[in-house]
Amino acid sequence: MSAPRYSRDHTALLLVDPYNDFLSEGGKLNARAKPVADAVNTLANLRAVVSAVRAAQLQIFYVPHHRARPDDFAAWKHPSPYQLGASRAQVFAVDSWGGEWHPNFQPQAGDVVVQEHWGGSGFANTDLDLQLKQHGIQQVILVGMLANTCIESTGKYGAELGYHVTLVRDATAAFSPEAMHAAHEINGPTYAHAILSSAELIAALQG
Amino acid sequence: MSAPRYSRDHTALLLVDPYNDFLSEGGKLNARAKPVADAVNTLANLRAVVSAVRAAQLQIFYVPHHRARPDDFAAWKHPSPYQLGASRAQVFAVDSWGGEWHPNFQPQAGDVVVQEHWGGSGFANTDLDLQLKQHGIQQVILVGMLANTCIESTGKYGAELGYHVTLVRDATAAFSPEAMHAAHEINGPTYAHAILSSAELIAALQG
Amino acid sequence: MSAPRYSRDHTALLLVDPYNDFLSEGGKLNARAKPVADAVNTLANLRAVVSAVRAAQLQIFYVPHHRARPDDFAAWKHPSPYQLGASRAQVFAVDSWGGEWHPNFQPQAGDVVVQEHWGGSGFANTDLDLQLKQHGIQQVILVGMLANTCIESTGKYGAELGYHVTLVRDATAAFSPEAMHAAHEINGPTYAHAILSSAELIAALQG
Amino acid sequence: MSAPRYSRDHTALLLVDPYNDFLSEGGKLNARAKPVADAVNTLANLRAVVSAVRAAQLQIFYVPHHRARPDDFAAWKHPSPYQLGASRAQVFAVDSWGGEWHPNFQPQAGDVVVQEHWGGSGFANTDLDLQLKQHGIQQVILVGMLANTCIESTGKYGAELGYHVTLVRDATAAFSPEAMHAAHEINGPTYAHAILSSAELIAALQG
Repeated sequence: MSAPRYSRDHTALLLVDPYNDFLSEGGKLNARAKPVADAVNTLANLRAVVSAVRAAQLQIFYVPHHRARPDDFAAWKHPSPYQLGASRAQVFAVDSWGGEWHPNFQPQAGDVVVQEHWGGSGFANTDLDLQLKQHGIQQVILVGMLANTCIESTGKYGAELGYHVTLVRDATAAFSPEAMHAAHEINGPTYAHAILSSAELIAALQG
Repeated sequence: MSAPRYSRDHTALLLVDPYNDFLSEGGKLNARAKPVADAVNTLANLRAVVSAVRAAQLQIFYVPHHRARPDDFAAWKHPSPYQLGASRAQVFAVDSWGGEWHPNFQPQAGDVVVQEHWGGSGFANTDLDLQLKQHGIQQVILVGMLANTCIESTGKYGAELGYHVTLVRDATAAFSPEAMHAAHEINGPTYAHAILSSAELIAALQG
Repeated sequence: MSAPRYSRDHTALLLVDPYNDFLSEGGKLNARAKPVADAVNTLANLRAVVSAVRAAQLQIFYVPHHRARPDDFAAWKHPSPYQLGASRAQVFAVDSWGGEWHPNFQPQAGDVVVQEHWGGSGFANTDLDLQLKQHGIQQVILVGMLANTCIESTGKYGAELGYHVTLVRDATAAFSPEAMHAAHEINGPTYAHAILSSAELIAALQG
Repeated sequence: MSAPRYSRDHTALLLVDPYNDFLSEGGKLNARAKPVADAVNTLANLRAVVSAVRAAQLQIFYVPHHRARPDDFAAWKHPSPYQLGASRAQVFAVDSWGGEWHPNFQPQAGDVVVQEHWGGSGFANTDLDLQLKQHGIQQVILVGMLANTCIESTGKYGAELGYHVTLVRDATAAFSPEAMHAAHEINGPTYAHAILSSAELIAALQG
């Protein structure tokens, strides 16, 4: 797939959930994501993409999942089983190391950290759409974790909202190879505008 | 999985895209969906579910995809490749047989037909959320086409918006067995509250 | 107030509810709006603004209120008293003269007619935001009816969604002078980016 | 106007912006709101309403405006003049007394504090709609500050989203009597389901 043109004025990188619990050794979900992440070289690719995006002076938006508190769902009528599981494990627990950004992905001056999302989509119930509009963004590039959950939900929402959506197949990971396959070969093509490798994206940013 | 309790006052069936182009012999997408649909008995299960839902006096909402017009995307900055493909084929063309409801799924008095959606989610850019609230609905059961596109996008949006979401694994179909598998075994469990067979659902509605 | 710069690529006119029932002699709401409309010269200003907008080649979006059907709210849990009143009068009745566009404001090729809205905001439960994004629009100019209902609700929503919002104080009307005053002197300044006269707007478009 | 029936299971109080900057002597906006607030007895009515709501065991949701940071709008393309004015004054400044809850309106165990809103509506770009749905809420009662800005925007959004909306004419305030009049006599009746006095509301809650 040939890469789109990414204008500095209208393109943003959405960096989804770069938490220690996902990306760092010892993180609560790291062991589950590591086989796929190692196979595609996720961490190195994320570093290279973020670096290229900063060099090209594109805006970066941090898109963070809700940081767990013990009683988050005590009064909810119907949290999903998946939310309850994450709550029991206190994934991305507030004020914990696991809920901090991985050391390689600390926000820099000028980055925007949007509100935390409760489900899978970074747009749902947050200020992401507003922040993107107020920065003139029309195209979003999604990287981070996980390919078939938060990345896919955020990408689908973005497309529904009218954004041009780019997925990066090796700057993300999942809990199984078939989940990666589903994200990029089965579902991605039904909503995304471009599905690139990190190398293809970086070349386009430098072009 | 044991079925939830579906109260008549708070539960609705969302019938997604029951168009001739999907469900009828000769429909533009029927040949692609038919192998999976025949394998799981989609059409018979859809009939049985709709019948059981009507017997249980649950509200039915039709959730229709946009009916194609030739110049839909002429002025859009970035329709997705998938939208462009559907547009070239004029899938669900307005005022055509393919864009009519399958004969077994004609709206009845009291059913609500919501606005057409442009992408995959029946909630995005439509009045579905408003109509559900104005009918007191808190739980939605999704059936129709396709499992990994409109059903999944509508289900994910519904969960983000705070609804209790039930998928029905054999009252839908997809273009490949692996797309069905992705919808119900990989992605469904990350957002849905229940994933049932038609038989399990019907039993719960009669219970 | 000095007018903003309106770039052709990023600015749209939102033409709200230019129905016969509002703007034409004999329309169901025309008598209530006419004293204010005549006082500020609404109809002539609307014509001048639309003409200037077309000359400047800005995109026009029609933003239509729901066209009434007799049983619209029969099954709703809580339509508002205002909606019920409009329903009793069958304002903008579907397939009626009152629900047609005023003869001076017929859509032209290339105009976008978005989905009908149920309440006051043209953004709520419609595809307006999506359509604006897919046309690259970042600034909206609101004209039409009424200043303190659909114009104000659409303008407030637009600002919340991240658009730059311009009101035009004499290209709209209301049912009383104090409602016009509230729209432009009390509430408008709390959310709008510019509040201009038609003459100021036209000068800016020609500038 | 006769009061609606407020069921404990489906009704919530939305307490909008009960900040020191609005409600306490010395708050940055207190002097501007105080003449109207004193005239209608806002503070005493707010206390009485919150007390009656707690006694009736209705759920309370805090709906907070964004707490100002010095560089909030540095990179925004078009903050509104009103937002810029509030930013210059650093109204509800983060980590300041002015951005703390008034002493009489401290959250209690079980109250929900939703995400901060950037504009006027507590629904826009926040998790308010999700939180209401997850608590089964269908009717909202709005009190707090100001009648014609955040209360009105939140109420209008709530109605668009399908909620039953009650305004309380003397449990709010504004910067001028005519702004109060516009909120309750001109605009309120175009979207709200009930507009009550605090006494009428309290009687209904006890009924």
